[in-house]
Amino acid sequence: MAATEIPDIVIGRLPIYLRALSLMAAAGQQITSSHELGEKLGISSAQIRKDLSHFGEFGKQGTGYQISHLQEQLRRILKVDREWPVALIGVGDVGQALIRYAGFRDRGFYIALTFDVDPAKVGQPIGDLTIQDIATLPDAVRELNVQVAMIAAPAGVAQEVADLCVKGGVRAILNYAPINLVVPEGVRVQYLDPVTHLQRMTYYLA
Amino acid sequence: MAATEIPDIVIGRLPIYLRALSLMAAAGQQITSSHELGEKLGISSAQIRKDLSHFGEFGKQGTGYQISHLQEQLRRILKVDREWPVALIGVGDVGQALIRYAGFRDRGFYIALTFDVDPAKVGQPIGDLTIQDIATLPDAVRELNVQVAMIAAPAGVAQEVADLCVKGGVRAILNYAPINLVVPEGVRVQYLDPVTHLQRMTYYLA
Repeated sequence: MAATEIPDIVIGRLPIYLRALSLMAAAGQQITSSHELGEKLGISSAQIRKDLSHFGEFGKQGTGYQISHLQEQLRRILKVDREWPVALIGVGDVGQALIRYAGFRDRGFYIALTFDVDPAKVGQPIGDLTIQDIATLPDAVRELNVQVAMIAAPAGVAQEVADLCVKGGVRAILNYAPINLVVPEGVRVQYLDPVTHLQRMTYYLA
Repeated sequence: MAATEIPDIVIGRLPIYLRALSLMAAAGQQITSSHELGEKLGISSAQIRKDLSHFGEFGKQGTGYQISHLQEQLRRILKVDREWPVALIGVGDVGQALIRYAGFRDRGFYIALTFDVDPAKVGQPIGDLTIQDIATLPDAVRELNVQVAMIAAPAGVAQEVADLCVKGGVRAILNYAPINLVVPEGVRVQYLDPVTHLQRMTYYLA
């Protein structure tokens, strides 16, 4: 199957391409090229063409890419030509910012369920949702077939939260907590701890 | 120079090792092994030993790593054995969450300056700081020798903000805005747009 052959690093660049194309489209642009995309993204045009060639033929030699068509194809490949329900766990500062963030829905996601460990928060409304008890998570996510979770809980409980997510059928976790999660094979985690990303850059500073 | 020879992917793993070691230390543990670290991180012990071997000899065969020593060395290598002043630009939901986040200072960073484009916010206090006019950014960051910035501004102004940062001498940018930044060589950017990270995982979902 193609899905197992394509390196994850290639998959990781596709959302970057899609994001750049969407900004071009929003600005009224209709056609682009691997050269122009590469300039905007700091990626070589050869790399972009090679990445896209894994999935078929999207441009014509000399005429470039039709932006709307390439967007459509990338959305299909990334499976964001639909809206994934997401479970958000942890309604502190980061969780609240995520609930108010307007950029999810038109890019394939919406927060469908929200949970917290704090009994004082459980039952409270937030946005259009009601904060649910973390203990109910596995059943609740299973019932809605939620496969995606965002963990914005403290590091001390993040592993326990991840375990509950996995128990309920979650297979993709965006983790804001500053801790590595141990998950079974077939479950993916992406990490958004700001400090590890900062520390990766200070190495290069004078 | 060693700094130019070591792959960035290796540098990217060092903060992950440091974070895991700090959690072990906080739990009172004194010694660990590449095997134990690898189990916690889902990284092979051979990879961990190879990564660390770029920087010297940190453990003794058969006795493992002394955690406090390895922490100290990693902090030195990553240059977080000091506190970097950080400029935060954009004091919306994400920016406010970052200002309240307590996890920066003991890991090498503190927010020293904060800016916004909104005239209604400029001059307002936030935490211990006063929100400054974005126009003053280049001079302000240069004066404090701020080399690190976090951009939590909307996508539409993020490039302009990045340009001002670079003008002031910033060389490491953590970008929350959902847009790719064009920066000169020698300036590094790490991206924390949640949606691109989610889209990288949905590819693998059924």
